Amino acid sequence: MSVLVTGAAGFVGRALVTKLLAEGQGVIALDRSLHGLDAHERLTRIEGDLRQANILASAFEAGARSVVHLVSLPGGAAEADPDLSFAVNVEASLTLMGEAARRLDRPRFVYSSSIAVFGDPLPEAGVDDATPLRPRLIYGLHKRMVEDALATLTRRGELDAVGLRLPGIVARPEGAAGLKSAFMSDVFHAIAAGRTITLPVSRQAEVWLMSVQQTAACLAHAVSMDTAFLPEDRVVTLPALRVTMEALVVAIAAANGQSVCDVRYQADEALEAAFGRHPILSTPAAERAGFRHDGSVEALVRRALEACGAQPG
Amino acid sequence: MSVLVTGAAGFVGRALVTKLLAEGQGVIALDRSLHGLDAHERLTRIEGDLRQANILASAFEAGARSVVHLVSLPGGAAEADPDLSFAVNVEASLTLMGEAARRLDRPRFVYSSSIAVFGDPLPEAGVDDATPLRPRLIYGLHKRMVEDALATLTRRGELDAVGLRLPGIVARPEGAAGLKSAFMSDVFHAIAAGRTITLPVSRQAEVWLMSVQQTAACLAHAVSMDTAFLPEDRVVTLPALRVTMEALVVAIAAANGQSVCDVRYQADEALEAAFGRHPILSTPAAERAGFRHDGSVEALVRRALEACGAQPG
Repeated sequence: MSVLVTGAAGFVGRALVTKLLAEGQGVIALDRSLHGLDAHERLTRIEGDLRQANILASAFEAGARSVVHLVSLPGGAAEADPDLSFAVNVEASLTLMGEAARRLDRPRFVYSSSIAVFGDPLPEAGVDDATPLRPRLIYGLHKRMVEDALATLTRRGELDAVGLRLPGIVARPEGAAGLKSAFMSDVFHAIAAGRTITLPVSRQAEVWLMSVQQTAACLAHAVSMDTAFLPEDRVVTLPALRVTMEALVVAIAAANGQSVCDVRYQADEALEAAFGRHPILSTPAAERAGFRHDGSVEALVRRALEACGAQPG
Repeated sequence: MSVLVTGAAGFVGRALVTKLLAEGQGVIALDRSLHGLDAHERLTRIEGDLRQANILASAFEAGARSVVHLVSLPGGAAEADPDLSFAVNVEASLTLMGEAARRLDRPRFVYSSSIAVFGDPLPEAGVDDATPLRPRLIYGLHKRMVEDALATLTRRGELDAVGLRLPGIVARPEGAAGLKSAFMSDVFHAIAAGRTITLPVSRQAEVWLMSVQQTAACLAHAVSMDTAFLPEDRVVTLPALRVTMEALVVAIAAANGQSVCDVRYQADEALEAAFGRHPILSTPAAERAGFRHDGSVEALVRRALEACGAQPG
């Protein structure tokens, strides 16, 4: 009884594998490289591309009984190469879902979707469970298409799917992945190290955040939860803490025992629009199903600092 | 200034080509075989598979300025081969949309979607513009995915899309295509020829119908209409006449000058559920945008009889 995790060596993947092993579950970790993932007696390692039939076959033959599908071409790369995004984010996802449905009896299939399905920028009036999906980015369109498939395959009795729309996850390794939203993680590293940082958003910028440990806890909950509490289409927007950059900076400094820190704000209009104007967020469907955010900015910051291994300066 | 029509030699395609030529437009007809499509000075014929890059290139190089995309693997075939449905109904559609966006300046792109996006069976409470999309068939899922793409590419300013969800179209050629819903067309042929027919639904079965000529008129309207009247996501459910089989039979008989006809009803539960319980239909969004049904059962029947070339018995 193992959980197949695709993208297992990624930022969220590593935290999820750790969480699932700590819960006593078996894990089949699939990624192109599994560098950075420590050995464990209940961990099966499969290195290779999800899009190769033999790799996929060996993942299921290793005893997978449920799937958490994290592999994704990120937003910037998807926008730069829509055909590659279609191949990775849509086609490979549907192939994986089809294999899971064919080989197993209505398996749990957990999918990491994104708030990009709501549009870019996010609707000013706020986001709740009735907000229409109006993606503008290719990434958001392709995530939405997979959400459609989760719902239909569940309706058909082929999968028992759970889709989670993830907010901004912190704190990623420094300078990693070239994400435009990297500043949300870099600010943790900089303050912890006592370095100056200039943020590309304003002091009042508001962002939706979740620690990577809390994200892993939500994904692990999705693996074993009772889906009777989910909406018919099986997809929910995860709760998140909505904080201003200034409040985040103060909390990071406090966690590091600093009363002041050298953070400057030089807002870039495009980045402010894309990442600094996250509106009011209301997620009753996810909460009814047992999903939680970090609880407080202090808890979020403490976990994010642990996750990034930042050393207090 | 020509309209590229894919699936031009199909049942709906032929009626649309006829309509567009009658309006004075140029047409580029693309299909694997163009047998049955008469020559015309404003008609360019391209025989080949839409999924071949050179075929697609020659269609645009022939001077296409807008597109009506009718090619589709039908529901039964999609259900039998979901991978082929993905390749034809999703991937080829997205490739065509991408080519149109790349080669032209925000071209009009008209797509024939389906009421299968609402689910199977259709929701008993009725269908209106707020009905959630809950497809259960692979065909409906794949149509929905393309609807998603129409909306996003329009939002991005790459296409000027119009998606139309088509009801049951009559009257198809007799015995053609092996569609499970063929009885809706066959009843026209049988009564016109004075033959006995046993329908696989009940006398009280209610169906949404549109003549193929009216369908062609709606598609032609979509090519040239002002899209300011469309909803943000650019897809509407077409209006349709909702008639009982009994009322339809009486109207067909009357149009053929018959006071009685030999029609028997032997309901098959699966077919009755799939095709005989079309609920109340309300389509204000389409009507605001200028789309109309046939107006009356008499008009529908007259056109359907013309379309199928049925000879009164």
